[in-house]
Amino acid sequence: MRELETCFSPTLYEPERHAGSIVVIIDILRATSAICTAFENGASSIIPVGTIPEAKEYKKRGYLVAAERDGFVLDFADFGNSPFNFIREKVAGKTIAYSTTNGTGIINLAVTASDIIVGSFLNLSAVVKWLSERDKNVVLFCAGWKCRFNLEDTICAGAIAERLLATSLYSTICDSTIASVDLWSVAKNDIHGYIEKVAQRTRLRDKKLDDCIGFCLQQDFTTVVPALKNGILVNSVPVR
Amino acid sequence: MRELETCFSPTLYEPERHAGSIVVIIDILRATSAICTAFENGASSIIPVGTIPEAKEYKKRGYLVAAERDGFVLDFADFGNSPFNFIREKVAGKTIAYSTTNGTGIINLAVTASDIIVGSFLNLSAVVKWLSERDKNVVLFCAGWKCRFNLEDTICAGAIAERLLATSLYSTICDSTIASVDLWSVAKNDIHGYIEKVAQRTRLRDKKLDDCIGFCLQQDFTTVVPALKNGILVNSVPVR
Repeated sequence: MRELETCFSPTLYEPERHAGSIVVIIDILRATSAICTAFENGASSIIPVGTIPEAKEYKKRGYLVAAERDGFVLDFADFGNSPFNFIREKVAGKTIAYSTTNGTGIINLAVTASDIIVGSFLNLSAVVKWLSERDKNVVLFCAGWKCRFNLEDTICAGAIAERLLATSLYSTICDSTIASVDLWSVAKNDIHGYIEKVAQRTRLRDKKLDDCIGFCLQQDFTTVVPALKNGILVNSVPVR
Repeated sequence: MRELETCFSPTLYEPERHAGSIVVIIDILRATSAICTAFENGASSIIPVGTIPEAKEYKKRGYLVAAERDGFVLDFADFGNSPFNFIREKVAGKTIAYSTTNGTGIINLAVTASDIIVGSFLNLSAVVKWLSERDKNVVLFCAGWKCRFNLEDTICAGAIAERLLATSLYSTICDSTIASVDLWSVAKNDIHGYIEKVAQRTRLRDKKLDDCIGFCLQQDFTTVVPALKNGILVNSVPVR
């Protein structure tokens, strides 16, 4: 039986304990939704970039650069992390250097994993299928917000966990996984209503960055499964 | 409006941000349930003790000593942390030195708080009343298990949060608080059934330490509110 665990924050991640597992990174508002959208729209690869100086260096070298801090596009970048930026006309066939508030640090933490993939509601079924086809333990790694627990990533983890547990290939003795499934059970009948009460909803509205939330809650917009290969995200499942 | 926050693990606690708040420590299986029971049964005070050598020193000096690691009573101690140990015949009028796996470290983390009190289902209404009477922000601090999220402390936090938010004295923009209230809403109609699926339930059963779980889920067994004064827990609300 494969083990399924969920981690609610980078602060709670235990690299040694999770060594050899597949790690699914979840940061739905908005990084992992944007990454899925970019691959759906034909991006060839995405280079996760840590610092702002590194992102600037990629810009100088002619790459498309996505870079944000606290949701806002950095002035030298081509775009921030709204999925609406990653349109086909801009990204098809391109390699994008991508630096986000949360994402890159998380990838570095998950270095002991056997595989690192990117999950969101947008590629929910594709992620579940991809995981089911591989005989490994799984960690659903919620990015959280400034290292705190957040609800939107937790309910997405719950949606994935519910499906995985239903396959009978996985079991869990992880309270975080049980909690995420229960929270998803509360949220799923009115996910748009549920998201109204999460803190990030308020933060994005205050910054007028909330136009993409409805899109980010859409299930199975794409079949892509972005996966890290040699430090670079590529799409491991062809677009439909 | 007073702010209400919830912290799911010592690892997630932010002493600077929570400075000046009242902190409610929740570790229902079994430390905070045992402490409430001790005061209900007439204990005069409880000294939180960190290390095993310190606990041994208190024993030499003639104190009653409660000390456990991973649930098991240490050999030199008078008892562990089952609430069933703290009976009136043993504890009435006594000062107890108490060392637990989780508890003492948490008290040290919460040193920036204006007040530190002890919460459990056993003193739920008393805690809610005590907090309501004080015009301070509140942090519900779940002990978790080995620094991980746990469900039993989270649903107890949710039960307290639900009551506090219903008073209209408190508001929250904390996703952990919202999640704990939602998980309590799932659990509360069959709390004994719900607790069957939490990890600590299995751990305690495996160690044959699960006899007290039903007792620990009982609401309002006592009116005591253990509070830290000069480093020592005393009962700040008289027994009925």
